[in-house]
Amino acid sequence: MTTRADAERLDAADPLASFRDRFVIDEPDTIYLDGNSLGRLPKSTRDRLHALVTQWGANLIAGWENWIDLPTSVGDMLAEAALGARPGEVVVSDSTTVNLFKLAWAATEGPGKAIVTDSGNFPTDRYVLDGVANLRGLELRIFEADPVDGPQSGDVAEACAGGDVALVSLSHVAYRSGALADLPGITAAARKGGARVLWDLCHSVGAVPIGLHDAGAELAVGCTYKYLNAGPGAPAFLYVRKELQNELRTPIQGWFGQRNQFAMERPYDPEPGIRSFLAGTPPVLDLTAVECGAELLAEAGIEPSATKAAALTALIADLHDEWLAPLGFELGTPREPKRRGGHVSLRHPQAWQICTAMIERAKVIPDFRGPDSIRLGVPPLYTRFVDVWDALDRVRALVEAGEHEQYDPTPTRIT
Amino acid sequence: MTTRADAERLDAADPLASFRDRFVIDEPDTIYLDGNSLGRLPKSTRDRLHALVTQWGANLIAGWENWIDLPTSVGDMLAEAALGARPGEVVVSDSTTVNLFKLAWAATEGPGKAIVTDSGNFPTDRYVLDGVANLRGLELRIFEADPVDGPQSGDVAEACAGGDVALVSLSHVAYRSGALADLPGITAAARKGGARVLWDLCHSVGAVPIGLHDAGAELAVGCTYKYLNAGPGAPAFLYVRKELQNELRTPIQGWFGQRNQFAMERPYDPEPGIRSFLAGTPPVLDLTAVECGAELLAEAGIEPSATKAAALTALIADLHDEWLAPLGFELGTPREPKRRGGHVSLRHPQAWQICTAMIERAKVIPDFRGPDSIRLGVPPLYTRFVDVWDALDRVRALVEAGEHEQYDPTPTRIT
Repeated sequence: MTTRADAERLDAADPLASFRDRFVIDEPDTIYLDGNSLGRLPKSTRDRLHALVTQWGANLIAGWENWIDLPTSVGDMLAEAALGARPGEVVVSDSTTVNLFKLAWAATEGPGKAIVTDSGNFPTDRYVLDGVANLRGLELRIFEADPVDGPQSGDVAEACAGGDVALVSLSHVAYRSGALADLPGITAAARKGGARVLWDLCHSVGAVPIGLHDAGAELAVGCTYKYLNAGPGAPAFLYVRKELQNELRTPIQGWFGQRNQFAMERPYDPEPGIRSFLAGTPPVLDLTAVECGAELLAEAGIEPSATKAAALTALIADLHDEWLAPLGFELGTPREPKRRGGHVSLRHPQAWQICTAMIERAKVIPDFRGPDSIRLGVPPLYTRFVDVWDALDRVRALVEAGEHEQYDPTPTRIT
Repeated sequence: MTTRADAERLDAADPLASFRDRFVIDEPDTIYLDGNSLGRLPKSTRDRLHALVTQWGANLIAGWENWIDLPTSVGDMLAEAALGARPGEVVVSDSTTVNLFKLAWAATEGPGKAIVTDSGNFPTDRYVLDGVANLRGLELRIFEADPVDGPQSGDVAEACAGGDVALVSLSHVAYRSGALADLPGITAAARKGGARVLWDLCHSVGAVPIGLHDAGAELAVGCTYKYLNAGPGAPAFLYVRKELQNELRTPIQGWFGQRNQFAMERPYDPEPGIRSFLAGTPPVLDLTAVECGAELLAEAGIEPSATKAAALTALIADLHDEWLAPLGFELGTPREPKRRGGHVSLRHPQAWQICTAMIERAKVIPDFRGPDSIRLGVPPLYTRFVDVWDALDRVRALVEAGEHEQYDPTPTRIT
């Protein structure tokens, strides 16, 4: 039996406990377990955005002196704090979708005949890859990964066995199950098969250590509004390993990738290095929020953050086994802590109704992913062990009482 | 002789005079004539952004109910207030560069062999078109437009005479000279030659009426941080005429363009209509600033705004002739008010030094565009006639005194 006192003891021993005070938390009764979809507002972000708007009003065009290098300076911060990449390998700008497009296109310039992904990959990844494959005249090969364990290096080795694959693109953490892929092993398997690998780090960045450099990773993208807490629609990052930067070319030749950008009278002549992958003018307000989020993570450290996230997801798994499995729930996430990211998926045939009841009756905010998954995210900088305990206790109570049965079983829009 | 009292009389009679109070203006001695590069901060934007950040902190994921339709709702506002387009023809998201890429790609799916633009087009336009031409195996034909008057319909008719042009892409207002292109005439000339036309409205939107629908325009993009005052790097808009929306396809197949976006288990199946041209998650903070800017323009009205802008540029031209022409200046902008947008370009062999002196000694903020242009922008919602009079008076004084001569003649970075 795991008691609430056990959870309290874990909080008392948590070296990151004080970080919760760095976030705006207005609703003490609500338990927010959807920070893996939209992270909370850091107080520093609130203050910095206020200062930035004031700066725009006062400094006007001269403000650009402070803003123009944000895509690379924030990229370097993320490279060090979150990605295990070197300076000059990461930029922040554009959306994950646009960055995926740029890199998927750039990586399929060569002779391969196919792009490979798995059927459980995030929708926008599959859509972008489908588009690039069509435009490039390539085949899009979609393999079925295990719905809980996600894609394995064996799957990728098999998909690349014919030697005709140009690109393998996968998510590091599966958006539905939370399974953490073996990034080094899969990268090696694809490289052995002659393919490049493009990683989507949206659901892993800030929740687990990502040693891009040490893993030999070549290409990656990821978003900043989940565990990096950068706010709704904050721009995404893009990583290109240094050795590839002058070999690969972005299809979107924009002025922020131009050498000596303001000498405007010249033809396209891209900046060498990672800047060439920038396109247009970056959204400065949202980009500033990424800077604040990256600073917070750097201060907390990715190793302590990941350790805490793993302990929180372990507590969910334990309480699931004790309380929820007897109520028809099933764990939709790998059991081994090292095989998952910062969220856990609980499967139940009435998942939609339970999600609705959790929000409306229990003040617990999860999210629903069809057809049958309730996702519980535990961003480590502000989630407490008692939050997890209380949330699962509330879920147990409402399902035991059948309170979810009153809700319409047909899923409607859920972000 | 135009006296300061004349300028004061024009301000007293200005029906838009009260709009100046709607902006944050902290530096009463500084005359800001670079709002054509980065517009001023509206007070409503400052307040709305503050509220939005609070909303993110309090509502968390539920905030998306209010945000998810911003790309289309703000698009519709711009369509009506600024563009002369119909509802469902405009979305706001991504940068101008990315939107140019999407539409240039989409418009060159057909059988043509060339893309046409002019050598004076804005850099990012030329770079994007060069990239699309290379990837598509098309020729990029760059014609020389008159450096003051900009591209003419005759130029375009000639470029399209062979019937092999897939796409003509031009700026509505030339970024350097401020020349306003004949949008209906050029569109007709290109259509007659069998080519599609993609307009860049960055330097015209909010400064002149743009009747996209009445002109038969098919495709357009433009930014929001100039005359729409949406702040640094605010997202751009994209227009696709209704009749073309289901014929043209974006190359970037993203989840914000998917029908029933949150039913995630399906292959790519784009939303019919303008939403299919969205890509990834839009930057909500910056997008909210576009909403505020569009509201201000709607309230002022584009016709009164354009009338005032034309009167302000006419005052610049008059004072140039009286005071500056004798000092070696030359008007780099068409003389006829209907042939220009909201900025005037003054050419001088020492333009860089004069710009520097204006900023550092005269507290007048222009911008420099190589090799010899000083741009003076007069966004009509906050620029007064006395601002123009005082600014040109200060320029006259400093050039007469040779104060600019002390500055280094070599241009350095200027945004």
